[in-house]
Amino acid sequence: MFNCTFVILGATGDLTRRKLIPAIYRLIRDKKIKNFSIIGAALPKKTKIEVLSEAKKFIKNYDSATWKILQTNFHYFQFDFHDFDRYKTLNKKLEAIEKKQKLSGNRIFYLATMPEHFSSITKNLANVGIVEKTISLPNKQSPWVRIVYEKPFGYDLKSSQKINRDISKIFKEEQIYRIDHYLGKDLVGDIALIRFTNSIFEPLWNNKHIHSVHIVLSENIGIEGRGEFYDSTGVVNDILQSHILQLLALTSMEPPKRLAGKFIRDAKSNVLKKVKLTSAVLGQYEGYKSEKGVKKDSKTETFVTAKLFINNRRWKGVPFFVKAGKCLDKKEVSIKIVFKRIKCLLDSCPSEPNYLTISIQPEEGFYLGMNSKLPGKYEVIPIRMDFCHSCLFGTNTPEAYENLLIDVMRGDQSVFLRRDEIEQSWKIVEQLKSKKLKVHKYKKGTNGPEVKL
Amino acid sequence: MFNCTFVILGATGDLTRRKLIPAIYRLIRDKKIKNFSIIGAALPKKTKIEVLSEAKKFIKNYDSATWKILQTNFHYFQFDFHDFDRYKTLNKKLEAIEKKQKLSGNRIFYLATMPEHFSSITKNLANVGIVEKTISLPNKQSPWVRIVYEKPFGYDLKSSQKINRDISKIFKEEQIYRIDHYLGKDLVGDIALIRFTNSIFEPLWNNKHIHSVHIVLSENIGIEGRGEFYDSTGVVNDILQSHILQLLALTSMEPPKRLAGKFIRDAKSNVLKKVKLTSAVLGQYEGYKSEKGVKKDSKTETFVTAKLFINNRRWKGVPFFVKAGKCLDKKEVSIKIVFKRIKCLLDSCPSEPNYLTISIQPEEGFYLGMNSKLPGKYEVIPIRMDFCHSCLFGTNTPEAYENLLIDVMRGDQSVFLRRDEIEQSWKIVEQLKSKKLKVHKYKKGTNGPEVKL
Repeated sequence: MFNCTFVILGATGDLTRRKLIPAIYRLIRDKKIKNFSIIGAALPKKTKIEVLSEAKKFIKNYDSATWKILQTNFHYFQFDFHDFDRYKTLNKKLEAIEKKQKLSGNRIFYLATMPEHFSSITKNLANVGIVEKTISLPNKQSPWVRIVYEKPFGYDLKSSQKINRDISKIFKEEQIYRIDHYLGKDLVGDIALIRFTNSIFEPLWNNKHIHSVHIVLSENIGIEGRGEFYDSTGVVNDILQSHILQLLALTSMEPPKRLAGKFIRDAKSNVLKKVKLTSAVLGQYEGYKSEKGVKKDSKTETFVTAKLFINNRRWKGVPFFVKAGKCLDKKEVSIKIVFKRIKCLLDSCPSEPNYLTISIQPEEGFYLGMNSKLPGKYEVIPIRMDFCHSCLFGTNTPEAYENLLIDVMRGDQSVFLRRDEIEQSWKIVEQLKSKKLKVHKYKKGTNGPEVKL
Repeated sequence: MFNCTFVILGATGDLTRRKLIPAIYRLIRDKKIKNFSIIGAALPKKTKIEVLSEAKKFIKNYDSATWKILQTNFHYFQFDFHDFDRYKTLNKKLEAIEKKQKLSGNRIFYLATMPEHFSSITKNLANVGIVEKTISLPNKQSPWVRIVYEKPFGYDLKSSQKINRDISKIFKEEQIYRIDHYLGKDLVGDIALIRFTNSIFEPLWNNKHIHSVHIVLSENIGIEGRGEFYDSTGVVNDILQSHILQLLALTSMEPPKRLAGKFIRDAKSNVLKKVKLTSAVLGQYEGYKSEKGVKKDSKTETFVTAKLFINNRRWKGVPFFVKAGKCLDKKEVSIKIVFKRIKCLLDSCPSEPNYLTISIQPEEGFYLGMNSKLPGKYEVIPIRMDFCHSCLFGTNTPEAYENLLIDVMRGDQSVFLRRDEIEQSWKIVEQLKSKKLKVHKYKKGTNGPEVKL
């Protein structure tokens, strides 16, 4: 059970409403936090009741006792990021709350804002002394201060490097938590475990046995009222740079020294350095330009597919196909490892190669595509061996943001992005952007543009 | 659709009643045979109605139209195996039926008798000219004659060699079908297909990746009124010599040139030559000696477990543990391949190694034991990926004997035992018998004797 103060900057935004408040609610309900306080700060003039009520509809299994604890410990602070005086007031408010509630002084600053504000907010917080351990409480441990940056972390290599330079003057890398919430998902955490704790997979995990890898993050919904954000970001920055490349890194990294934070991040960073993007196709769904908040002549891509190779001994020659997009034919997040075929000893040979699919959405689980025998005949048919994660554990498993907040509280950076990883990812995006690709139209509900890789 | 005459010798026995008549019934129902005749021959003085009615209770989904066809085409022939004159009468009866029904002249002799009668019955059939193609019908193809021998094929190496010598003077190996009905089971036929059509398994199928192999054929029932047969046979001859060693051979054989009859039998025979049995434990369940038909001082074993090695490059050092018995704690027929562990990269390491189980009973299917992640924690738990054969195909798949009869009719010897295979198996049994092991007692419903291998 943790004791700390959350300061959420961007407290009236979509993310706070949909994800952060519900995650904190569940942490309270499951008694994973106690003696805590939340300060939500944002520009709109609102009451805390208003701010919280916007999050209420995203709470599953609502329970009024839990909600009451949340409400009691939540404070709303009207706040302009550019107004230095307000940082001073925020600092005073924070100290007062900590004192009154006899809190530990542990502080989490959560920047749920656009990345252009990351540098200035961080500097301003530092300048008013808010990131210092200013309070001295009768506490055995000295309190910690940690800062969380939502994705996207920058818009390109240059901007992410600048943010990193700026924030590293104030925080040590051990205090910095760069979010990629996909890494908080259970099945994503499972990728490395599946690979490295199952002796049947490790011997197969190389170019001798793997034919190709397919990473898909396809959405069947559009931009859902987030036009302004989306139009300035696009699917490459929003999804490929982060989720897709992380899934790729987890799938392809060399065995880390141990399956633990630092070593996994070393391994991911190392493999990302070797990624070469050879071709890509961009798309924009028809009707995108009429969405609210989108520029009428927008060239922002809502679809990307790309072919990448990893230039090392394990993966030489194995194509990694990645695909992400909005308004596609289905909702699917998955990694499919297609194995090479072996010499066929039959007259009628299997039509399907073997494959392993790790499915993250819609259902969590993994399955093996194999061949078996048609009963009564000596004929091969493709079958699927399933392991349904949600069937075994129920769907009530922790949500990504709940896992992430717990990790921040206990200081585990395993599933957050390190500076080098994030910069490596932007370098891969630069390879794509340097191609200056045309953005092709595609119909909603289809598989993307008709142009092939 | 086949056209032939079945001559079943031993037509009032348990096997005919439980397996052969129901299998023929299903072949009729599924229109797999047409224009056929069955002559059931045995010692008891009975009518055909009596003989058939004993089989009726073993028919699933009884349908009176099918039963009527069976009854019309069934003939019962009272017959003493030792009476040469009766063979002459049988021959005449057979010819008369073939003529009357305008049958093709194709003949299957099915010896559902004890192996001590195999040589003499075969000789007598030959001596009255019954195995000759004596009839000449307006048929394009010349008719075939095939002979099927039930298991056990002999009592030891010597007796099986003698039978082989005797019958090979009359029949060519292509006409001889030595039954191991386990080979007619769909999942047993699947073992080789799973291995050789799935690229994920073949690279793992060796002593580098496999820790041990466990073959179990455990029954929770006793000898079920078959005391006389069982007491003269025992589990080693009844199960280990046949089913167990066949499952072992299918699991361990080198890739055959093609997945087809002759090549599979070559591969099985080759691997059986390399089998070395190093230790074994025999058991007899308490109360066995009071069973009807069992000698009061019987030393017949109802339980065997053994450790075997295969002396070739693929399997050097990998123990094969086999176990079979009556009155054990569960009904189970399975092959479990346990994979070696890999270096553990976690603090809390998996408790279970990976394994592949091919389950033949109670349910047909196969499953992979693997490790996955406990939701919300970075902890490993063992899970099982399933493929349930009967879930996909229903339980209405062909029974072993149905597959076997069809194979005899179409002349496919793939799932029958060749002379060299059967003699190799008896040689392995000799290794066990030469140890002159004590027979330990065990309680019914347990896992066998407490003595360990």
